[in-house]
Amino acid sequence: MKEIKNRSDCPVSFSLDFLGDKWTLLILRDIIIHDKSTYNQFLYSAEKIATNILADRLAMLDKHGFLTKEISAEKRSSAVYRVTEKTVDLIPIIMELNLWGAKYNPSGDQGLVDELKTDKEGTIRKYQQKFRPSSH
Amino acid sequence: MKEIKNRSDCPVSFSLDFLGDKWTLLILRDIIIHDKSTYNQFLYSAEKIATNILADRLAMLDKHGFLTKEISAEKRSSAVYRVTEKTVDLIPIIMELNLWGAKYNPSGDQGLVDELKTDKEGTIRKYQQKFRPSSH
Repeated sequence: MKEIKNRSDCPVSFSLDFLGDKWTLLILRDIIIHDKSTYNQFLYSAEKIATNILADRLAMLDKHGFLTKEISAEKRSSAVYRVTEKTVDLIPIIMELNLWGAKYNPSGDQGLVDELKTDKEGTIRKYQQKFRPSSH
Repeated sequence: MKEIKNRSDCPVSFSLDFLGDKWTLLILRDIIIHDKSTYNQFLYSAEKIATNILADRLAMLDKHGFLTKEISAEKRSSAVYRVTEKTVDLIPIIMELNLWGAKYNPSGDQGLVDELKTDKEGTIRKYQQKFRPSSH
């Protein structure tokens, strides 16, 4: 895993120090939107992430507190990843990426777009509440 | 410049096909937030982008319609880059990256945070209107 070096004190740059690659936010999308939680589930997503990249990004996300990892006593491969508040706070970014991508790739999946266009704040809150049991 | 290959029909993935790296959104940040428009201005930003990466990303952004490039008749180095609607539509993503980065790096620059927290929609609209003269 590459060390993360903060390039400046700009908050956009700080976010991209962690999230600026083609894969990290897709793993988090899988958890947040598609309710996935294991290595194998991430591996079999449509984008076909490579095993070394997946392992690297999961290690980074664990190390920097985006995910927690519960390892089953019997089977190492069945570790379950759960998001922390740091990732729940990324949901607005993921939803904005969804809206932009749906607009500029109109032949792609438009699944969440209607909901986001009708009530963006409410949709974001709904997804955040899935991972914030205390706020129900 | 690497060819951009769309990995799936997921809109989040589509967005990251273009934007998923550490530098592309920083160049667009420079134009949108810091009113920069030339190669040299981008080059001297705090993150110290390498010349080959900057040239590569500007070519990608030009090719895929995120920026237009006006080349001065006298001096090639004085090309002026301007954002298109495709980039104006990225402003919500950049602002959400700003909010997240400011929250998780509280010792960094908090410049836009108060404004975004007070009126996120209005702040986004204000920046978008800078680049949409017709909507004034």
